[in-house]
Amino acid sequence: MQTIRHSASHILAQAVLELFPEAKLGIGPAVEDGFYYDFDLGKETFAESDLLKIEKKMKQIISQSQKFEKYEVETDKAIKYIKSKKQPYKLELAEDLKKEGEKTLSFYRLVMPDGKNKFVDLCAGPHVTLSKEVGAVKLLRLAGAYWKGSEKNKMLQRIYGTAFATEKELAEYLAKLEEAKKRDHRIIGADQQLFFFDDIIGKGLPMWLPKGTIIRNEVEKYALEMEEKAGYVRVVTPHMAREELYIKSGHLPYYKDSMYPGMKIDDGTYYLKAMNCPHHHTIYNHNPHSYRELPLRIAEYGTVYRNELSGTLAGLLRVRSIAQNDAHIYCRRDQIKQEFKNVMDLMLAEFKTFGLRDYSFRLSKWDPQHTEKYINEPKNWAYSEQVIREVLAESDVPFVEADDEAAFYGPKVDIQIKNVIGREETMSTIQLDFAAKGKFDLCYTDENGKHNNDVFVIHRAPLSSHERFMAILIEHYAGAFPLWLSPQQVQVIPVGQDFLAAAKAFAEELSAVGIRAWFDDLNETVGYKIRKGEKQKVPYMIVIGEKEAKGGDLQVRVRGQKDIENMKKTDFIKKVAKEIAERE
Amino acid sequence: MQTIRHSASHILAQAVLELFPEAKLGIGPAVEDGFYYDFDLGKETFAESDLLKIEKKMKQIISQSQKFEKYEVETDKAIKYIKSKKQPYKLELAEDLKKEGEKTLSFYRLVMPDGKNKFVDLCAGPHVTLSKEVGAVKLLRLAGAYWKGSEKNKMLQRIYGTAFATEKELAEYLAKLEEAKKRDHRIIGADQQLFFFDDIIGKGLPMWLPKGTIIRNEVEKYALEMEEKAGYVRVVTPHMAREELYIKSGHLPYYKDSMYPGMKIDDGTYYLKAMNCPHHHTIYNHNPHSYRELPLRIAEYGTVYRNELSGTLAGLLRVRSIAQNDAHIYCRRDQIKQEFKNVMDLMLAEFKTFGLRDYSFRLSKWDPQHTEKYINEPKNWAYSEQVIREVLAESDVPFVEADDEAAFYGPKVDIQIKNVIGREETMSTIQLDFAAKGKFDLCYTDENGKHNNDVFVIHRAPLSSHERFMAILIEHYAGAFPLWLSPQQVQVIPVGQDFLAAAKAFAEELSAVGIRAWFDDLNETVGYKIRKGEKQKVPYMIVIGEKEAKGGDLQVRVRGQKDIENMKKTDFIKKVAKEIAERE
Repeated sequence: MQTIRHSASHILAQAVLELFPEAKLGIGPAVEDGFYYDFDLGKETFAESDLLKIEKKMKQIISQSQKFEKYEVETDKAIKYIKSKKQPYKLELAEDLKKEGEKTLSFYRLVMPDGKNKFVDLCAGPHVTLSKEVGAVKLLRLAGAYWKGSEKNKMLQRIYGTAFATEKELAEYLAKLEEAKKRDHRIIGADQQLFFFDDIIGKGLPMWLPKGTIIRNEVEKYALEMEEKAGYVRVVTPHMAREELYIKSGHLPYYKDSMYPGMKIDDGTYYLKAMNCPHHHTIYNHNPHSYRELPLRIAEYGTVYRNELSGTLAGLLRVRSIAQNDAHIYCRRDQIKQEFKNVMDLMLAEFKTFGLRDYSFRLSKWDPQHTEKYINEPKNWAYSEQVIREVLAESDVPFVEADDEAAFYGPKVDIQIKNVIGREETMSTIQLDFAAKGKFDLCYTDENGKHNNDVFVIHRAPLSSHERFMAILIEHYAGAFPLWLSPQQVQVIPVGQDFLAAAKAFAEELSAVGIRAWFDDLNETVGYKIRKGEKQKVPYMIVIGEKEAKGGDLQVRVRGQKDIENMKKTDFIKKVAKEIAERE
Repeated sequence: MQTIRHSASHILAQAVLELFPEAKLGIGPAVEDGFYYDFDLGKETFAESDLLKIEKKMKQIISQSQKFEKYEVETDKAIKYIKSKKQPYKLELAEDLKKEGEKTLSFYRLVMPDGKNKFVDLCAGPHVTLSKEVGAVKLLRLAGAYWKGSEKNKMLQRIYGTAFATEKELAEYLAKLEEAKKRDHRIIGADQQLFFFDDIIGKGLPMWLPKGTIIRNEVEKYALEMEEKAGYVRVVTPHMAREELYIKSGHLPYYKDSMYPGMKIDDGTYYLKAMNCPHHHTIYNHNPHSYRELPLRIAEYGTVYRNELSGTLAGLLRVRSIAQNDAHIYCRRDQIKQEFKNVMDLMLAEFKTFGLRDYSFRLSKWDPQHTEKYINEPKNWAYSEQVIREVLAESDVPFVEADDEAAFYGPKVDIQIKNVIGREETMSTIQLDFAAKGKFDLCYTDENGKHNNDVFVIHRAPLSSHERFMAILIEHYAGAFPLWLSPQQVQVIPVGQDFLAAAKAFAEELSAVGIRAWFDDLNETVGYKIRKGEKQKVPYMIVIGEKEAKGGDLQVRVRGQKDIENMKKTDFIKKVAKEIAERE
């Protein structure tokens, strides 16, 4: 696939040069899901309509069954050749290669069946043999891109496209892309008024609107209930701490670039927290502990701050202020397996509630050959990797093992969720930590009354952060949230102004039993209100006319269902309340 | 009272000089609740036991009925006199006065009835006529204090005391002080493990332990319920924003000293928020509004950050990170009165729930003579002050009016709560703001479809911040929280190891219906466990022995009640659940 796409990028360059002979070429690699090529058109710019023309030309080249031929040229001769072709960016690349000591440079040319040379590019390959092997191609969009990715250089025009071996595969991919666009959490977030970003507030700092806040709070309430049942206690810790804490934890200086700059005030320099762990360790250490008190499970939807570059931020998936579904479990060595199992059970139960089924687990282990990268406690590594493996096997989940990918402080399990277009998002993580006990002198008094420093910490965030999880949920549900998460659970629509009062009374009846009813007295037609509700993906709609106002049965419109259901009012309220309570 | 206390400070200085002739005198003013005097004893320090000796000497001086006599001395002559007395601090004060251009300096001497001069102090007075008018005196504690309050100077020894006209008043004051000490939120907070401060985390940043978190969350849940009923919507906003927001709001540069230093990152300088209002205004402005949508009540337990000097921090009453019970109400001019009334009703209902009865209201108004200090909208001032006055009168609460004490942007109502020792704490505030509409261009479309910029904002925080309110609540209840707030609602105590299982089962039965049961399997006597529970002020205790394990009636120990109540298990559970639900 990479070869097909890289070949397609050469075909794109040839097509552009045929249509825009003055174009200067940048680079044109294959990337995830497709390829691109960068061009400098001088003062001209590509129009969207040019993409169609270029694509047509590419299809022509493909149908001509041009041959990809590789050949090597002595470096100085190659540079002379590129100069003659007036391609300054390629020239710069060739000169870079010369500086690196390359004696010869490799080129690919595209040649017609009759031997006519159509296009030459400095390239290491590999490529397909014949252009017609690029079975299907599609140009997708235009973007700006700095030469060599540096804002000090000129901005070139980048054409993105994708290619597949067959038209069928391309059609499937485009359908998925279309579906992904419909599910884009930024678009649904704006349509349903869930959250927004504002430049004067700052990039990467979501502002949660009332409807988004309801969903966020429902998720949090659910997580709290689950954690309470699982024996967690809750704490609240400040969003900052003195420099000294982060020196102790090791975040400073190693993690400094990801943290916000320190704030110097009268009694020291304070940092916004990038992690909740040092605060939770401080809570653990506030009191002495007996072996009977372990495991101690300290939970907090703690907000942490990451100094991400503004250019890397992406909707809710990458933000600067992150409310983590965080907890730290302090346990003895003999409790690791059971605690890992408990976390797995909690996580799988939560995934089930949200209908997240397409997940995979990855156990990242250390490498005993590279002890310099890891805390050097071979017995703990061997023991904990083994018990975690057992937990994964016993939990009957798909998992792979990866050597030499653990954290410095212990093995970890990452959970990936596959979204509707098949892209994997890292969702949750469970990490075992045997470095914290040393750094924070975590300890307890054991059965024999002796001081024991063998405290293991499990870091876990089954529901990721509010920000990332909301993005995943919005796209997962395509905005059609299950009833219990829906900000507006039942829309009540009066048939004209005569039934305003009856509709309002019914909405209030629903509110009184904790059902979020949406009623407005705007003077709009029933049809218009229904369309508004459908756009907001409201789970239930009830139209209140004369019959309903007089106490007759309700006609219930169920989201995603064609037939209208006939129901007694009391039955409807009972049904909705039950569905909410059971988080169906 | 001030005169009595200032006179007592002179008597203290005389007593110290009689017992410690080498003592050098600093200053000795009357302060709130008493007086102090600063001394330099060279290398010696006062012991706690010295306070008793000094107090005895003071009582002797008082009983001698010494006379306070004032006299003036020409400045240079006065300086010469002080030099001869070898009092370097007094000399410095006299020389300061000379520099300020004083021609003569005033002194007070204490003279025995036989005319013998006992003590002379540089002092402007006034004083009582005879020492015996200081009817009752008590030395309270020792502290260190820098000369002239500057850490560049020497640290002197400060003796604090108090004085009253009669022994009865003193006894009452000391009893209140004793009561206040018992109720001190810092002491109860540590005893009951509610919160703590940690030097490595930083000053003024409370760490909420599990039990404190429960109370905090119960308060928040209650506030949320009340606000939901009152038609508020909730939002979540980030804890920081770009510099530009605070320039727009006017916090920068005027409020800069109270804010944490800016954090410069790749796309600008970010500040921790010192107020939630600019964020809420930005939410208001995210969508256009119709007159029908007003009032819009936007609520958030928003956390704000104040850069308080480390020396001014005081337990939870003055912190650096503050979770405010915040909301902003956006309304039309004709809605101000009703919205103010709604806020008053909400606040009074909340006070009632918490049993806070000793409050007073203060309406701060502008001064039309000082328009430079206020937004210059005389009609809005007159109108809004009048409607707020009407609301206060109709709410039937005690209130005073204060001219020239409003905020720049509008009139405000402050609510003071009197604590058990009679000290007033500012609790809540309701502020009307007619400057925000200009700064943030707040507007709506009126009945005629026209753009209207007349949006009034009410800032309100009935329950103050979590930090301040928890301090007030702890002291108000002296740690004996009502059932619904108690972190441990029912303590279940097994009669020895034989009934561990039955006790545990009962505790789980309580937990299952949402009652916070406290059960531990520590091998302690019933008596010891009861004492532990009493210290933690647990509302109910149940001992589980043979009879109870077999399903017999429960013997219920009620906090603060001598008699043990006999109750069926189901009745007990029903009673407790009802009390919790009704927040009795």
